[in-house]
Amino acid sequence: MNGNSIGKALILTCFGESHGTCIGVVIDGCPAGLPLTEKDVQVELDKRRPGLTAVSTARREEDQVEILSGVYQGYTTGAPICMIIRNRDVRSEIYEQIKYKPRPGHADYTSFIKYGGYNDYRGGGRFSGRVTAAYVMAGAVAKKLLRTLNVEILAHAVQIGKVKVQRDLSYDEIRKNTYRNPVRCADPEIASLMESEILEASRQGNSVGGIVEGVALNVPVGIGEPIFDSLDADIAKMMFNIPAVKGVEFGVGFRAASLRGSENNDQYAIRRGKIVTLSNNSGGVLGGISTGMPLIIRVAFKPTPSISKKQRTVDLIHMEETEIEITGRHDPCIVPRAVPVVESCLAFILADHAIRSQKIPRVLSEKEE
Amino acid sequence: MNGNSIGKALILTCFGESHGTCIGVVIDGCPAGLPLTEKDVQVELDKRRPGLTAVSTARREEDQVEILSGVYQGYTTGAPICMIIRNRDVRSEIYEQIKYKPRPGHADYTSFIKYGGYNDYRGGGRFSGRVTAAYVMAGAVAKKLLRTLNVEILAHAVQIGKVKVQRDLSYDEIRKNTYRNPVRCADPEIASLMESEILEASRQGNSVGGIVEGVALNVPVGIGEPIFDSLDADIAKMMFNIPAVKGVEFGVGFRAASLRGSENNDQYAIRRGKIVTLSNNSGGVLGGISTGMPLIIRVAFKPTPSISKKQRTVDLIHMEETEIEITGRHDPCIVPRAVPVVESCLAFILADHAIRSQKIPRVLSEKEE
Amino acid sequence: MNGNSIGKALILTCFGESHGTCIGVVIDGCPAGLPLTEKDVQVELDKRRPGLTAVSTARREEDQVEILSGVYQGYTTGAPICMIIRNRDVRSEIYEQIKYKPRPGHADYTSFIKYGGYNDYRGGGRFSGRVTAAYVMAGAVAKKLLRTLNVEILAHAVQIGKVKVQRDLSYDEIRKNTYRNPVRCADPEIASLMESEILEASRQGNSVGGIVEGVALNVPVGIGEPIFDSLDADIAKMMFNIPAVKGVEFGVGFRAASLRGSENNDQYAIRRGKIVTLSNNSGGVLGGISTGMPLIIRVAFKPTPSISKKQRTVDLIHMEETEIEITGRHDPCIVPRAVPVVESCLAFILADHAIRSQKIPRVLSEKEE
Amino acid sequence: MNGNSIGKALILTCFGESHGTCIGVVIDGCPAGLPLTEKDVQVELDKRRPGLTAVSTARREEDQVEILSGVYQGYTTGAPICMIIRNRDVRSEIYEQIKYKPRPGHADYTSFIKYGGYNDYRGGGRFSGRVTAAYVMAGAVAKKLLRTLNVEILAHAVQIGKVKVQRDLSYDEIRKNTYRNPVRCADPEIASLMESEILEASRQGNSVGGIVEGVALNVPVGIGEPIFDSLDADIAKMMFNIPAVKGVEFGVGFRAASLRGSENNDQYAIRRGKIVTLSNNSGGVLGGISTGMPLIIRVAFKPTPSISKKQRTVDLIHMEETEIEITGRHDPCIVPRAVPVVESCLAFILADHAIRSQKIPRVLSEKEE
Repeated sequence: MNGNSIGKALILTCFGESHGTCIGVVIDGCPAGLPLTEKDVQVELDKRRPGLTAVSTARREEDQVEILSGVYQGYTTGAPICMIIRNRDVRSEIYEQIKYKPRPGHADYTSFIKYGGYNDYRGGGRFSGRVTAAYVMAGAVAKKLLRTLNVEILAHAVQIGKVKVQRDLSYDEIRKNTYRNPVRCADPEIASLMESEILEASRQGNSVGGIVEGVALNVPVGIGEPIFDSLDADIAKMMFNIPAVKGVEFGVGFRAASLRGSENNDQYAIRRGKIVTLSNNSGGVLGGISTGMPLIIRVAFKPTPSISKKQRTVDLIHMEETEIEITGRHDPCIVPRAVPVVESCLAFILADHAIRSQKIPRVLSEKEE
Repeated sequence: MNGNSIGKALILTCFGESHGTCIGVVIDGCPAGLPLTEKDVQVELDKRRPGLTAVSTARREEDQVEILSGVYQGYTTGAPICMIIRNRDVRSEIYEQIKYKPRPGHADYTSFIKYGGYNDYRGGGRFSGRVTAAYVMAGAVAKKLLRTLNVEILAHAVQIGKVKVQRDLSYDEIRKNTYRNPVRCADPEIASLMESEILEASRQGNSVGGIVEGVALNVPVGIGEPIFDSLDADIAKMMFNIPAVKGVEFGVGFRAASLRGSENNDQYAIRRGKIVTLSNNSGGVLGGISTGMPLIIRVAFKPTPSISKKQRTVDLIHMEETEIEITGRHDPCIVPRAVPVVESCLAFILADHAIRSQKIPRVLSEKEE
Repeated sequence: MNGNSIGKALILTCFGESHGTCIGVVIDGCPAGLPLTEKDVQVELDKRRPGLTAVSTARREEDQVEILSGVYQGYTTGAPICMIIRNRDVRSEIYEQIKYKPRPGHADYTSFIKYGGYNDYRGGGRFSGRVTAAYVMAGAVAKKLLRTLNVEILAHAVQIGKVKVQRDLSYDEIRKNTYRNPVRCADPEIASLMESEILEASRQGNSVGGIVEGVALNVPVGIGEPIFDSLDADIAKMMFNIPAVKGVEFGVGFRAASLRGSENNDQYAIRRGKIVTLSNNSGGVLGGISTGMPLIIRVAFKPTPSISKKQRTVDLIHMEETEIEITGRHDPCIVPRAVPVVESCLAFILADHAIRSQKIPRVLSEKEE
Repeated sequence: MNGNSIGKALILTCFGESHGTCIGVVIDGCPAGLPLTEKDVQVELDKRRPGLTAVSTARREEDQVEILSGVYQGYTTGAPICMIIRNRDVRSEIYEQIKYKPRPGHADYTSFIKYGGYNDYRGGGRFSGRVTAAYVMAGAVAKKLLRTLNVEILAHAVQIGKVKVQRDLSYDEIRKNTYRNPVRCADPEIASLMESEILEASRQGNSVGGIVEGVALNVPVGIGEPIFDSLDADIAKMMFNIPAVKGVEFGVGFRAASLRGSENNDQYAIRRGKIVTLSNNSGGVLGGISTGMPLIIRVAFKPTPSISKKQRTVDLIHMEETEIEITGRHDPCIVPRAVPVVESCLAFILADHAIRSQKIPRVLSEKEE
């Protein structure tokens, strides 16, 4: 009844804790014949690695991937792919204080109750944002699968704290600029402001949230399963499984509430022999099925709950009120590192659904010997 | 690979089309010993029924439930519960024009492509909002299950078009006022404005969207499964499976993006011997697990895509651009009828997770003879 | 956590009780574009119907199928297919005695305990052999799907009581003879002996068991998923879900235990440009994957537990020993009616796996208008 | 659509190949608070290790388990438990010849076709009997869980080649004798004959099959889910996922076919205040639900397909007939090493169902600090 697996055709099972031996994934259902190396995965993991700048945690996460199964002679075999990254540079002592004194905004309290105190609380254990490294490993495989369909996945920070991107960015700008700055914003000027926003919060021992936009281009029409495995429903579910996510919207999203039908409907036309919509308020999905237009999602992240300000909490053993001051190394803003995670989550669900829709075959091509 | 089932311990399978014989559900995993009658379900279905007022469709949906299995002598038996409502007052002829001319904003185009034209297009077929009657039938059972844990489910319209609820409403106001007006808003004055908003759009042959807030009270601490079946992730998924939903957020939701950690964190305290949080920005869920505080979700609905204004579309057979004018009877705003649907979806996922967490036993009580 | 669904790509959900309103199925994942009528299903149900001869129950089961969803204008739409048969000619009064006095060999005792006495005990309720009508409805669809791959499903009785088929029967004999006699045996002479065996047991108020052999011809090589969804494992599971099944074997089955490797191995050769095995001791499956040779399964059925002889039982309320004499109308041997059920179960799992293997597309062909 | 996971409440995901880095499992859904060490698992793995005697392979499999996640301070945390054993003493060169020349009786041919030649063929790769080490790791956890319910799991070889156990063995004999001899037979005299049978086959470059009986004692009444997750159906499925299994039966099994109902029915009585059956022909399961009597299963294994005799095969590249002589180190009889595997598979399914039935809580006890 636990929920450590997701997907129906491409199935991701995740294991590992923040301060345990490793974080790992098993990917079942990956078609045979996909070229896959550790380097393919490492490239994606590196995007998520905390930078050397002040905007991210001082914890050094090397996150070197090891592929333990499912790949032979450079190709996937059709067998499950297990990949792990080992945990290093772990300082667990500082977590002794949180064992019975839950940190506000973290899962300390809820996981303590759920697991009767048996949960590994060090660094948040199973509830650490570190599990998103697993999503990225899976995303690396998913992206390679999607590339066989010419699907491209992008993501970028569109808001950090009160700083927002003010204009429409072209896919080319997103493609080129996002990873050129530490905040993963495709607008270089806004990126600088975002950086200041984070540093200011950091200096105050505080933190900020933000919004990541994800985009999938060239998604074939017809992906997504009614009625409970709608493409948007499955993507939303995956996004809410990223720690700190508090909201998800597609296309115009919450703004749709105040629009009239005539403003919101995307009317059809034919362009270069292909059916398109003249606007894309739906964000590329109708009835839970892809329209072929860019799939657009926005994901809201709360500010990192770890702040150095003194906060009120309770002692779970003595059932009395107390206070906590969190030390340790934390990202003052999780959004920049969440950008590749959003990419990965989007890629994973799309790849799962592409296989379900039989758009990706179970053996990718004939092997050359 | 289809997705017509949802849930892991309480499993909802849905079938039926808008203009077919019936809409139905099979609920598997309902504990034995729950008193259940058709009346229990009918009460909930009636909340979703279009009213006699101008704010909803003129289609008469009687929606009389029939329980076909799983109940004996007034109690659930532990066997799957099948329930159907028959489709009546169906006028299918008017849908012939949409067979090859997809209505903007509907699933006509995507379902045509996905199913190679074999889909039942009448009234949107499988993609009609009418399938939400199935969610309500399942919700009726879920609510009865949750009542054994003292969990209460509420929902109300907080925005319709540009009209928004402006103040915090007490749970008592929501409980008492929501179903007293046709727009399902708990603030009577705002309700009147919302009604006008809908009528104005309707008069213009247009439609409006809105936002529904759902609340679950008395949810026990510890419900929700890490890491892919987080309580919020599963609830969000269910909500996105309601046709027309474009955004979902928990607690402060998207607003969290602009908050500082010190503003957003919910600090702990003890009140009457129970651990509580002093604020509830998280909306009752941390790490995907219930905190015991009220669970709060907001769900954004787009305006009904069926509008009587002429719209651009394409002819799928001749691959040429054309226009469409939609006739037929439609809700100018789906939000009022979505209120009980949001309740039902919230109830269903909570009941599923409550069983998964073993908070609800598999046999509810000893039967008296 | 209940188990009323089976299959991963083609998913069968079953509901209904022996003396309730109906027995029903929902089939999710059937590709769009399959021609399907009620007659297609009725033909299969009729094979399972008790005959007019003395070898079967006197209960008249008309079993007229009604398709409630998923079919439009004679073709499957890709939406879930719900089918029901209504229960008629039900005499429930005679079951009052078994409410607290479990019949030996039936599920009365175990279901009473499991469901705390809430189970519908009439006619065995959910545990009646009558649920196999659901398997046959699903099998009818599965067979039509398999026919698109040229796969043919056969089954026949090879043993009833102590009477066994003594020689190898050709597929043609099985195809032609099986349904020509009331015991469903492809060897006409043995069929007569089997009939006598049943009648003799019947006269004594007793019952007999038997063995059904199932065969699938022209199964493509490569169907079946390692390692937990092996083709044989999934077929075996489905067979054990037929009430009264006590054993399942593939190819030489239990006889393999006493063979040497050199006798048991099926060596490879090429015939008409195709790889074949020179023997088929494996029964068409190696490593859980189809070999392309005939898939052969044998399924052992226990004698019908309902016998008119007095038997010892207990009173579940007063916890005291007592006796029971079962009245009512029962098959003295379930094997003849199990033959089409074995066919259906075999067909269902093969069709599920054929879709999983992407041997069957999600849309079957272009619709002609 | 792959099938590398099994179980619904306790979920086993398996990965790894015979000659890859490791064989591993992820166990999701294990309740928190179970004391678990690597030693607990090692004890079970050691039972499966090839002996130093002539009856088993000369391959040295150390199979040292490493627990990578899910355990903290000696207790399970409720998070997924990943365990691996590394592959050592691997000689892969000898497998080059089988790359395109499938060995009769192995999965070489079927897996080549299924995975388009991308499968890791070394040592059978994913299809090697070595994956059963994964089942044993999972079984070790399952056995510890079952012990909290006082359930005991036994297994023993009852037939090897033509040598069969001739008498009923007491549970005490099975408990004490089975692991005292290399063939895992509880009757010491028969054990010697079995050993000779294996050695004789071995000397001839041949192999033998056999039958393993599994027993579960003290299973609570009421475990098993109708109608597709019957306890016997799920156990049978798991057993057929052990490579080389060709038949499975419960209780009297295939013999039931020739019994009369009056002989086969297990009549009820009360003994020491508990309901029992006077015989146990059903093997402890009725209607797919445990009766509380000993659960008894027999599992037929084919002879090891690897024999040193020359055999006919085909060249998959040139599509021509050829021959193969298998070298390498193989068990002349897999049955002795299958005994702990049958135990493990039985334990795993029972533990999964015990959690599904809520007989095992999600947190096992309060942790002492």
